[in-house]
Amino acid sequence: MRILDLNKETTSNILESLLKRSPNSYGEYESRVAAIIEEVRKNRDAAVFSYTKQFDRAEINADNIVVTDEEINEAYATVAPELLDVIRKSLVNIRAFHSKQLQNSWFTSGENGTILGQKVTPLDKVGVYVPGGKAVYPSSVLMNVVPAKVAGVPHIYMTTPPGADGKIAASTLVAAKEAGVDTIYKVGGAQAIAALAFGTESIPKVDKIVGPGNIYVALAKKAVFGHVSIDSIAGPSEILVLADETANPEYVAADLLSQAEHDEMASAILITTSRALADQVSKEIDYFVARLSRKTIIEKSLENYGYILIAPDMETAIDTVNEIASEHLEIVTKNPFDTMTRVKNAGAIFLGEYSSEPLGDYFAGPNHVLPTNGTAKFFSALSVDDFIKKSSIISYSREALEDVYRDIVQFAECEQLTAHANSIKVRFEDV
Amino acid sequence: MRILDLNKETTSNILESLLKRSPNSYGEYESRVAAIIEEVRKNRDAAVFSYTKQFDRAEINADNIVVTDEEINEAYATVAPELLDVIRKSLVNIRAFHSKQLQNSWFTSGENGTILGQKVTPLDKVGVYVPGGKAVYPSSVLMNVVPAKVAGVPHIYMTTPPGADGKIAASTLVAAKEAGVDTIYKVGGAQAIAALAFGTESIPKVDKIVGPGNIYVALAKKAVFGHVSIDSIAGPSEILVLADETANPEYVAADLLSQAEHDEMASAILITTSRALADQVSKEIDYFVARLSRKTIIEKSLENYGYILIAPDMETAIDTVNEIASEHLEIVTKNPFDTMTRVKNAGAIFLGEYSSEPLGDYFAGPNHVLPTNGTAKFFSALSVDDFIKKSSIISYSREALEDVYRDIVQFAECEQLTAHANSIKVRFEDV
Repeated sequence: MRILDLNKETTSNILESLLKRSPNSYGEYESRVAAIIEEVRKNRDAAVFSYTKQFDRAEINADNIVVTDEEINEAYATVAPELLDVIRKSLVNIRAFHSKQLQNSWFTSGENGTILGQKVTPLDKVGVYVPGGKAVYPSSVLMNVVPAKVAGVPHIYMTTPPGADGKIAASTLVAAKEAGVDTIYKVGGAQAIAALAFGTESIPKVDKIVGPGNIYVALAKKAVFGHVSIDSIAGPSEILVLADETANPEYVAADLLSQAEHDEMASAILITTSRALADQVSKEIDYFVARLSRKTIIEKSLENYGYILIAPDMETAIDTVNEIASEHLEIVTKNPFDTMTRVKNAGAIFLGEYSSEPLGDYFAGPNHVLPTNGTAKFFSALSVDDFIKKSSIISYSREALEDVYRDIVQFAECEQLTAHANSIKVRFEDV
Repeated sequence: MRILDLNKETTSNILESLLKRSPNSYGEYESRVAAIIEEVRKNRDAAVFSYTKQFDRAEINADNIVVTDEEINEAYATVAPELLDVIRKSLVNIRAFHSKQLQNSWFTSGENGTILGQKVTPLDKVGVYVPGGKAVYPSSVLMNVVPAKVAGVPHIYMTTPPGADGKIAASTLVAAKEAGVDTIYKVGGAQAIAALAFGTESIPKVDKIVGPGNIYVALAKKAVFGHVSIDSIAGPSEILVLADETANPEYVAADLLSQAEHDEMASAILITTSRALADQVSKEIDYFVARLSRKTIIEKSLENYGYILIAPDMETAIDTVNEIASEHLEIVTKNPFDTMTRVKNAGAIFLGEYSSEPLGDYFAGPNHVLPTNGTAKFFSALSVDDFIKKSSIISYSREALEDVYRDIVQFAECEQLTAHANSIKVRFEDV
């Protein structure tokens, strides 16, 4: 793995290279996605079935688009009991963590009978997109569904592309059922996003669409944003390890590779103040890569977006951590909690040498749907917050409004909004 | 004002008509906006100055793009002392309400030394867009800046189009200064949004862009979403009054008009269970419209998007309220708090006959930047939440990880992510 000295130029080159992976840089697909959306909006079910035939080679119609109880029972009979067991253990942790994110409605009451507040309401209908294909990630189903469930969303729909045989992977179905999905539709791609955003005869229009997908799915989500809400647009996975000389090079190497194996666009970066650690990690990586099943992907990903960076001091290292704003950040330093207080931008922060990143992917409880590609500067992990909205509450008594009515009239008149002023005055003056 | 009986068909026709006002329906402008963004991305300041010359007829360059202290002092000398006074009173209330939205970082510690939590960090740089032109709304400056300030955002930049003389309205400058904007740039339109999203020599790249604007600004914000975060895309203003026979028709009429005066696309709807109230409100509206300064706009807006709807019962009325999901909802019924508990979708809810909507626009404290065009089903008022992000915190001890490591390995292996499994195993097994 390449080892570079960390300086402004290195950082800026790396940032530029990483940002090229953004779904925002794929303008050429936009018109194809726009055409699919328009077609589904116009011809609804017919368009959805036709695209499913074209892209997934599956014969889907109004009678078989919904996954049946029989199919779910069959899935339970198929999955390894060990997987079901670990899904259930993991669910306990995911539910526990997300339950702590619940927010209450609140109000304050003031002088003269004023009440101000915020009413928290769960969204009514949520669509969860689950990718199909060879890679099947039941953990991702749990992470997308549980926060909605904990928020109190009454209707959770899932869409996922069927195989050519019209079937959905058993572990996806089991995870969906365990997490609490209400209905599963056999449709994927941009056509699924369009169907959820505008509704068809078979698929209900939802309020929000979440879940990862390929570039077509990502662009479709961006295109329907505003008609519905979406989660942040997912880019390729990333890990950044910040380590000093106390870190265990074997662990650091193994953790870097855990993200590099996701796909060829994934990024794995070590920033360290120790040249010795840098060399050792590089050797450990060579050792592991040769032995891992996803060797080809890993090699490509490390070649494209893998770096070991040697920082002159911890301060520079942390500045770079904040600039990269990685999806996953591991801090393996003498005092990881102290270091953490200086980190501003990261999706999830793993502290100490036993907090390996896959612990967060599968088990600990915090969400593994995290902001990628530098968006941790302004986006957060998927959470219960994503599945609620807040309405302001304003209640004034006659006395309270009378006390301030001239001020409001003044302000409205300064903005030349005389009907605004009139609506206040009418309550106290003869207009 | 037209009076209709409320039924499924009426509701669905009205909803269809309202949704046509969405900025999402203006695809034809998208390519022009995309071209402006591309040009600013490539030629930076030069492009910004050139568009400002073209669209605003103002000569802006690197030396005069930033509003100076002298210009701000001049603005203070210009604005009416009464306006400054009411701005300051209003700021006290806006700050007080938004301070209650602040969220703490939190953590939980579990068995065997596990720590899980959420770290709240304010965004670092925020851009606030303020429209120019004839309509100058200092209240909007306060509402966009204060939540960012309360959240702890250290860098707040404002952009607003200059007049042909290169000047910004005095009340805008005073409101910006009072609210705590750090730097004001004289640039507007899609070029301002592009500059904030990508940075130029003069204008810093920000993490999030908020604030209302015309269709170019709205589409530009949507286009840069993902590169930066944005607030929800603002549509035309709306008021929905839900009233029974106890409501005062004069107040209801005045309140409906307060939103109708905003622009010709604004919508004002009364839903009532009382035919007598419907008739009285209609008469009051005729009386007021003839006397209000923005008569022409109001007439047009009522003709396009104004309705008085007579509901067969309160339940049907509330169902329609939830379907329309209005930006502003006034509840003027016998028991407004009881009615409110059944409302799911509304940006801000005003309770009782002394909670006139303009009270919320200017003074009470809750934000007046609210979801429009049915998006109250999934979006919330602008708030402190918009200016923070949350990083997950995960820390496991050796003992804690050892207890569960086989489960995690199991899950990873089911997903065929062997490098994930390896990163856990390496800590406990000889791999």
